[in-house]
Amino acid sequence: MKVLVLNCGSSSLKYQVFDMKNEEVLAKGLVERIGIDGSRIKHEKTGKDAYKMDVAIPNHKVGIKVVLETLLDGDQGVLENLEELRAVGHRVVHGGEKFARSVVIDQEVLDVVEECVPLAPLHNPANLMGIRAMIEALPDVPQVAVFDTAFHQTMPDYAYTYGLPFHYYEKQRIRRYGFHGTSHFYVANRAAEMLGKPIEDLKIVTCHLGNGSSITAVKGGKSVDTSLGFGTVPGVLMGTRSGDIDPTVVLYLMEQDGIDPKSMSHILHKESGIQGVSGISSDLRDVEEAASKGNPRAALALNILCYGIRKHICAYAGAMGGIDAIVFTAGIGENSKTVREMTCKELGFLGARFDRERNNVRSEEAFISEPGSPVSILVVPTNEELVIARDTRDLGIR
Amino acid sequence: MKVLVLNCGSSSLKYQVFDMKNEEVLAKGLVERIGIDGSRIKHEKTGKDAYKMDVAIPNHKVGIKVVLETLLDGDQGVLENLEELRAVGHRVVHGGEKFARSVVIDQEVLDVVEECVPLAPLHNPANLMGIRAMIEALPDVPQVAVFDTAFHQTMPDYAYTYGLPFHYYEKQRIRRYGFHGTSHFYVANRAAEMLGKPIEDLKIVTCHLGNGSSITAVKGGKSVDTSLGFGTVPGVLMGTRSGDIDPTVVLYLMEQDGIDPKSMSHILHKESGIQGVSGISSDLRDVEEAASKGNPRAALALNILCYGIRKHICAYAGAMGGIDAIVFTAGIGENSKTVREMTCKELGFLGARFDRERNNVRSEEAFISEPGSPVSILVVPTNEELVIARDTRDLGIR
Repeated sequence: MKVLVLNCGSSSLKYQVFDMKNEEVLAKGLVERIGIDGSRIKHEKTGKDAYKMDVAIPNHKVGIKVVLETLLDGDQGVLENLEELRAVGHRVVHGGEKFARSVVIDQEVLDVVEECVPLAPLHNPANLMGIRAMIEALPDVPQVAVFDTAFHQTMPDYAYTYGLPFHYYEKQRIRRYGFHGTSHFYVANRAAEMLGKPIEDLKIVTCHLGNGSSITAVKGGKSVDTSLGFGTVPGVLMGTRSGDIDPTVVLYLMEQDGIDPKSMSHILHKESGIQGVSGISSDLRDVEEAASKGNPRAALALNILCYGIRKHICAYAGAMGGIDAIVFTAGIGENSKTVREMTCKELGFLGARFDRERNNVRSEEAFISEPGSPVSILVVPTNEELVIARDTRDLGIR
Repeated sequence: MKVLVLNCGSSSLKYQVFDMKNEEVLAKGLVERIGIDGSRIKHEKTGKDAYKMDVAIPNHKVGIKVVLETLLDGDQGVLENLEELRAVGHRVVHGGEKFARSVVIDQEVLDVVEECVPLAPLHNPANLMGIRAMIEALPDVPQVAVFDTAFHQTMPDYAYTYGLPFHYYEKQRIRRYGFHGTSHFYVANRAAEMLGKPIEDLKIVTCHLGNGSSITAVKGGKSVDTSLGFGTVPGVLMGTRSGDIDPTVVLYLMEQDGIDPKSMSHILHKESGIQGVSGISSDLRDVEEAASKGNPRAALALNILCYGIRKHICAYAGAMGGIDAIVFTAGIGENSKTVREMTCKELGFLGARFDRERNNVRSEEAFISEPGSPVSILVVPTNEELVIARDTRDLGIR
């Protein structure tokens, strides 16, 4: 019972093949530089060394052809024939207000994903290219869409409505959507399992901290608030994205410096955040190192990040009327002991007793609060692909 | 020992005369529609009925002349002669990073207030008009400037720095400034007195909720974070201002609808907030009434407001590593039982035990948490004029 999981970017394509009998990853890989000189596939069959091949990949259709050929390869492959693939799951970034869960893709679904392109102009077109190429390659295999936004569709209206004239919501669907839903869903549920309690009884704040970051309030298993919004800029400081910012700053800079909306968007998405504040790097590891050597702007970036996470954790405790657990995940959340410590060390007043010794972990499931802490703090490596594979099995295989 | 306190808007001028021996208000008033047809003065001598006079007031200079004449009036006045006025205190909205406290006005101070005009293009020019007219009228009386921003100059860099490319701070002083500082200072100190504890030992969140609103974290008597920012839009929902909003929404609307920065600014300042969401009024009293009759958008506006206040209170508890008191002040904070109840009823997890009975107060100092609640909740009517009068006495009278 094999399932292929696909995550298409504008010039890249990530994939994993799962055997859903035991949820084992048989192979995974990445097609890079699609439509750009120097395109190639990196492939790794579980238990074997990674394999790279330079190959001309002018578009996603060819990219998918190369992936399927690799999966059938006698040496590197994991399939005897394509009929073994019982379903394909696609990560789709934006499902707007139409999708509160994963769905089997049909023409109507494609139309709605297309409708959502203005809401995710970089991501949805790439996701659509991947879906269409895969439908062409495997017309008889069920295809499932798993949306980044779906998990957050349970937010109450007062959490997702901006304080704008209401017609912007009614007519243009301007609202908070939130992203990384698959990750927040996965780590919240894993945390409940680790705590040995039904998720229905828990109030959890999940901190997905990577190059893009978001924090989510998960009450009884449902997202009730999240720090990304209509777009992917607000919330905490990110690699190159600003996080929360006074909108009058944006207007002031546009007027004073004659910046147009596109350039301003580029500044907020690509030149801000950890990179912009530190002036060193968008990679937090570089910034942590510089801060440890006394670089003041590196230290400032680190402080802004951890202060922002801390404020969000507490705000979401307020949103839920309490808190049982705090979960760290994704690149920074799983690996940065410094960020976890700086974020949590003053949360004792909430009942979250941070344990410096237990915090000495990387990329593994762990409790990093003191035993008996009223609020548990956990590290849970995320696994969005597994969630997609499970939804794809549940919906795609009859 | 009499002191005049002046608060000049672009077409209005508010004043109070204090006798600083006992901090008594001798008279107060308002000049309206300066430079507009129908200008007039409303004046109230303490203990007498209010008095109104229609009079042509083409500019602030004439406005101040009318005020001084009224103060000398045999019937309505409170001064025998102008020499009794020992000092004049001016509310000044924006002192940038230069003023962390009140100052006696000299040419250098005037220059800096002028430099800050781009940061407060509506307010600082009006404040300057008032100061200059008063200097001309009373050249020998010390004039003191009391800044809305000064109290917040104690914020740490990680609380005031936005996640933008750093040169925007270095070269253009783009940062969080915060406003309503005089009010936050006053109510935090009053709350400490009511609690019978030194303010140095307290962590207080002050909620100034009026037509404009801001929430401040006051740790040991110092502002360490506040919800207004570079400008007066972010934070919680206000009468016509949006509060926090994803900056990509602003850019999206500007691009999609062809809105220029000035019009966008007008939308965020004048068409949003309680007015924009409810579609009913910018006045919360109207919206509370509509919500109580079942109007869903009125209820939504009320929910967004209270949810935002609750999240800020908790975030600032996180910022301070704990919380001892929550203070409500200004028009809504002093008068709306509904807002206080909706904001506080789920804060029990923080140790703030809201008391529905004790909440039955308006515009008076009161505890509205249960006796013995670990976190106290208070109502404290603000008194910015008194703070200005005190600073004016302390600095202006030798």
